Amino acid sequence: MPDQQNRVTNRIDLQVDLSYEVAEPGADFVFNIHAARTPSQTLSAERLVLNQALEPQTYTDPNTGNRYMRLRARPGALKVSYAVCVDMTHCREQPSQIDEVPICDLPPQVMGYIYPSRCCQSDRLLTLATAEFGMLKPGYGRVQAIRDWVQGHVTFKSNSSNSSTSAIDTLIERVGVCRDFAHLMVALCRAVNIPARFATGTDYGADPALGPPDFQAYVEVFLGGRRYILDPSGTAIPMGFVRFGTGRDAADVAFATIFGSVKSQAPVVRANAIEDASLGIVLPHLCQDALSTDVGTVISSGDRSGA
Amino acid sequence: MPDQQNRVTNRIDLQVDLSYEVAEPGADFVFNIHAARTPSQTLSAERLVLNQALEPQTYTDPNTGNRYMRLRARPGALKVSYAVCVDMTHCREQPSQIDEVPICDLPPQVMGYIYPSRCCQSDRLLTLATAEFGMLKPGYGRVQAIRDWVQGHVTFKSNSSNSSTSAIDTLIERVGVCRDFAHLMVALCRAVNIPARFATGTDYGADPALGPPDFQAYVEVFLGGRRYILDPSGTAIPMGFVRFGTGRDAADVAFATIFGSVKSQAPVVRANAIEDASLGIVLPHLCQDALSTDVGTVISSGDRSGA
Amino acid sequence: MPDQQNRVTNRIDLQVDLSYEVAEPGADFVFNIHAARTPSQTLSAERLVLNQALEPQTYTDPNTGNRYMRLRARPGALKVSYAVCVDMTHCREQPSQIDEVPICDLPPQVMGYIYPSRCCQSDRLLTLATAEFGMLKPGYGRVQAIRDWVQGHVTFKSNSSNSSTSAIDTLIERVGVCRDFAHLMVALCRAVNIPARFATGTDYGADPALGPPDFQAYVEVFLGGRRYILDPSGTAIPMGFVRFGTGRDAADVAFATIFGSVKSQAPVVRANAIEDASLGIVLPHLCQDALSTDVGTVISSGDRSGA
Amino acid sequence: MPDQQNRVTNRIDLQVDLSYEVAEPGADFVFNIHAARTPSQTLSAERLVLNQALEPQTYTDPNTGNRYMRLRARPGALKVSYAVCVDMTHCREQPSQIDEVPICDLPPQVMGYIYPSRCCQSDRLLTLATAEFGMLKPGYGRVQAIRDWVQGHVTFKSNSSNSSTSAIDTLIERVGVCRDFAHLMVALCRAVNIPARFATGTDYGADPALGPPDFQAYVEVFLGGRRYILDPSGTAIPMGFVRFGTGRDAADVAFATIFGSVKSQAPVVRANAIEDASLGIVLPHLCQDALSTDVGTVISSGDRSGA
Repeated sequence: MPDQQNRVTNRIDLQVDLSYEVAEPGADFVFNIHAARTPSQTLSAERLVLNQALEPQTYTDPNTGNRYMRLRARPGALKVSYAVCVDMTHCREQPSQIDEVPICDLPPQVMGYIYPSRCCQSDRLLTLATAEFGMLKPGYGRVQAIRDWVQGHVTFKSNSSNSSTSAIDTLIERVGVCRDFAHLMVALCRAVNIPARFATGTDYGADPALGPPDFQAYVEVFLGGRRYILDPSGTAIPMGFVRFGTGRDAADVAFATIFGSVKSQAPVVRANAIEDASLGIVLPHLCQDALSTDVGTVISSGDRSGA
Repeated sequence: MPDQQNRVTNRIDLQVDLSYEVAEPGADFVFNIHAARTPSQTLSAERLVLNQALEPQTYTDPNTGNRYMRLRARPGALKVSYAVCVDMTHCREQPSQIDEVPICDLPPQVMGYIYPSRCCQSDRLLTLATAEFGMLKPGYGRVQAIRDWVQGHVTFKSNSSNSSTSAIDTLIERVGVCRDFAHLMVALCRAVNIPARFATGTDYGADPALGPPDFQAYVEVFLGGRRYILDPSGTAIPMGFVRFGTGRDAADVAFATIFGSVKSQAPVVRANAIEDASLGIVLPHLCQDALSTDVGTVISSGDRSGA
Repeated sequence: MPDQQNRVTNRIDLQVDLSYEVAEPGADFVFNIHAARTPSQTLSAERLVLNQALEPQTYTDPNTGNRYMRLRARPGALKVSYAVCVDMTHCREQPSQIDEVPICDLPPQVMGYIYPSRCCQSDRLLTLATAEFGMLKPGYGRVQAIRDWVQGHVTFKSNSSNSSTSAIDTLIERVGVCRDFAHLMVALCRAVNIPARFATGTDYGADPALGPPDFQAYVEVFLGGRRYILDPSGTAIPMGFVRFGTGRDAADVAFATIFGSVKSQAPVVRANAIEDASLGIVLPHLCQDALSTDVGTVISSGDRSGA
Repeated sequence: MPDQQNRVTNRIDLQVDLSYEVAEPGADFVFNIHAARTPSQTLSAERLVLNQALEPQTYTDPNTGNRYMRLRARPGALKVSYAVCVDMTHCREQPSQIDEVPICDLPPQVMGYIYPSRCCQSDRLLTLATAEFGMLKPGYGRVQAIRDWVQGHVTFKSNSSNSSTSAIDTLIERVGVCRDFAHLMVALCRAVNIPARFATGTDYGADPALGPPDFQAYVEVFLGGRRYILDPSGTAIPMGFVRFGTGRDAADVAFATIFGSVKSQAPVVRANAIEDASLGIVLPHLCQDALSTDVGTVISSGDRSGA
């Protein structure tokens, strides 16, 4: 169990504004734009404003903590404005101290994250991943090697992919956005039996040359009993990511899934970091440690009956 | 709530024998060969025998009821023998009485089953599915039309596919086994926003010309508040299917996922139906009614906070 | 041999203007924008103007008659202006009179057009094509059925595809432009052993709602000893197509293949039909007859040595 | 023009036996199993025996020299036995002396070999190929680097691919047979604008552990005015390859293309090298020089009219 000294706390003031033009006869939306509530991510001053008088349904997935909001919008403009103040506590650990978990010891709840998914076809990458990473010492270092390989083999390029683009496509075409980097890293981790999931939230610290602040996709891997966050796109400061959702891949945690005929404007995202020395809150910064937002509680290892 | 008159009970005596040759230094296995325990599927005389002295871990997924067994086998022969007596109660309903559920009313727990997955790339089939099925009256009849379309467009052919074969491949190449029929049907249902999942278990009633009894893949769709089972391969008697697992697609519920170097023999599956008039237990038979093994309890519709 | 009465002659005044901005250090272009010279397509008043003082190389492929122009452009604006007056003679035939040629009688020169190519993966469509078209009476009617199937299964949508989009993609996603309709039709013809090639040229008669006049892709099939032209996109009047090139698929006959960093503007194409009763020249019009621009000369059937 | 001293002559006694069982009502075959006749590959004692009394048609493609044999077999056994004695003269050159040809100087006849084809989708590999090989000095050395990269990234495994397997598949799955190595190398060469074609013939010198002698697929690249042969599978002695056919990819030069229902046995191939010091004929051997079977005649550079 990491001690207090290894924790770092950040605060992000977040504002997300979405704007759509909905055609007749209206459209259903499922949003995943609420910050997750977890033991290490606490929320205050949360506020959601809709320009249409609607009663959205919300749902928190008990497995992931993802908060979904569903609504049926009427034709015309739909504006969704979400704001929240997020305090995040990260555990920092020495990379060299973090081992992989053998398959036979993986908690059942993470087993699903070594299987292939829509955009992370790890089943086709076993030979490649074994050739590239199979000889490396298991542990966080191997995950870093995968992250670095993805960064080294893929070039960031806006609008170079779409919602059907998969890890296989990115591996071949070698361009993508953060979503594509994350899919490829997830697929490669799974191909060497490291549970990995796709995470979404908001970006922090990216080079403005890459575009305005935006949603961000990154990766959570399961090592040594907890999940660690990594940013294969290499464009940002992971300590400042606010987490919205986690899932198998982007198909699970689109920030908006739309059923109907709708024109979308680019989302407007503002994420301001707050520093408050009196509370021990520091600005997010790049660091060499491994970062986890997961308290690392013991996960039950299954029921006991042998059939 | 369907009344008692609309129920039918079947009993299957099941025996599954698996046989492997495990190379050095051993291999991890995750099996999904235990019959699920559900309100409408009750088990007795369950027995598991392994030829190696191992303590398998078992785990029941709380969301699906899938029962996974994990073990680390030593080099040499591994034999797994599973037997169980299964009583299954199906609700029978008039197809014309079963409606689809609008997206805005779907229980949150089934939303994940309208999204694409590894082998069911519904995201690429929206136009096709809308063109073929979009004009049909929503309801069970539309699902039957999708099932019939898949049956009419795909030819059963043993060994015509592998574990990476997806719904897209099957749509193009038009051959497959039950797994492929199920993937294509699942993908097409999702493409018209009908939640659909992939189910596995054991076959019953298939034409011996198609090969010896085997595992079976089929489909569960969510309509009118419960799940209904359908067999797009059209080769069997669905009433006799014992359910093992359900998931997004075959990647979730392989009957055996193997990590290591292993030679496999074909599984030996025996499923004998028992008739017992005194208990109201009848033989599985083809019928025109819709069949559900789901008691159709009300599923909670989400938490109430609007953020 | 069709007699004179079955011929129809059209005249098109064609003007093509292309405009590029070439980055440092210049770029190589291969154009295929010259009207082909064939026994049934005669050219007059041909004129090519470049804004850069360049000496383009031209090359006429002896097998297809395609005329390629290659040049190395300097940085800056490149403008290519091509104009020509084209007289085209089509043979009209009764569809019911046109048979398929058995594989054993196909001229060797057309054999290559029953094999798969980059964008026409007929090898994966054998089962589909046999199921859909295998039972139809061989002949022009079967080719019409394939054309109609493509028209019925694909929707025209501008900008819905790119240069890597293949027949398989179009079959799945069911949208495309004329290029995609042509690829899918070519692939399906080859899958039932009808030699088919991809043809490019200029459009005539398309509904202005689909956009300004443009290049056009269509299909040539080999039946009964000659090639017939068909327009699977169904958007235009085939009699008015000026032929530029023919090939296996679009990879062979791009109107411009560019090596280097270049910004392109949309091509400007003007195709005006001329009527001249005194010369027997009529306006292109839709007709029920099969149209060939191929004089149907006997093609040598191979050398005689049996090794 | 290389002088006499740089030539090496080999002689191969070749025997190919093919055996099929043809179902009713017979089947069409197109074979490409005749050794090509070229200025540097001369044939003697050629003999073809069929067990059915058939008159095969043969056809020599004027562009490639490929010799196709077509026949319509009756139901029952079909046995094809082909034997020939082949003298091959290779030009040997210093790799460091061999340059690439700029696009603007490529002979028109080889331009088609920089475009993508069914199994060599170079259009999707531009970024990858530029990243991996774009910085290398143009010339034979760069082609060697591509060959070595393919060898280093793909593992030879019998029966790991089928006739639809493409360069993209091989790049992802990293296993294949000689055909797959060749496709990937061809695709990568084209992606950096080096004309490359797929060549087939018979193997020589392969490790018997990889299986009995067989057909062989390899690569011809166009550099410095002629074509050079390379073996990306790295399993054999290229000097001993007898050339049958060359094409865009395997779709063009299958050793047998079959139309109908046929059971095939594995081909039996015998390739014995003959040494005859009196005639200057040596045994094929591995060497560091670049090898060409192409006399390197000047290829006409196009017609002269600028339109």
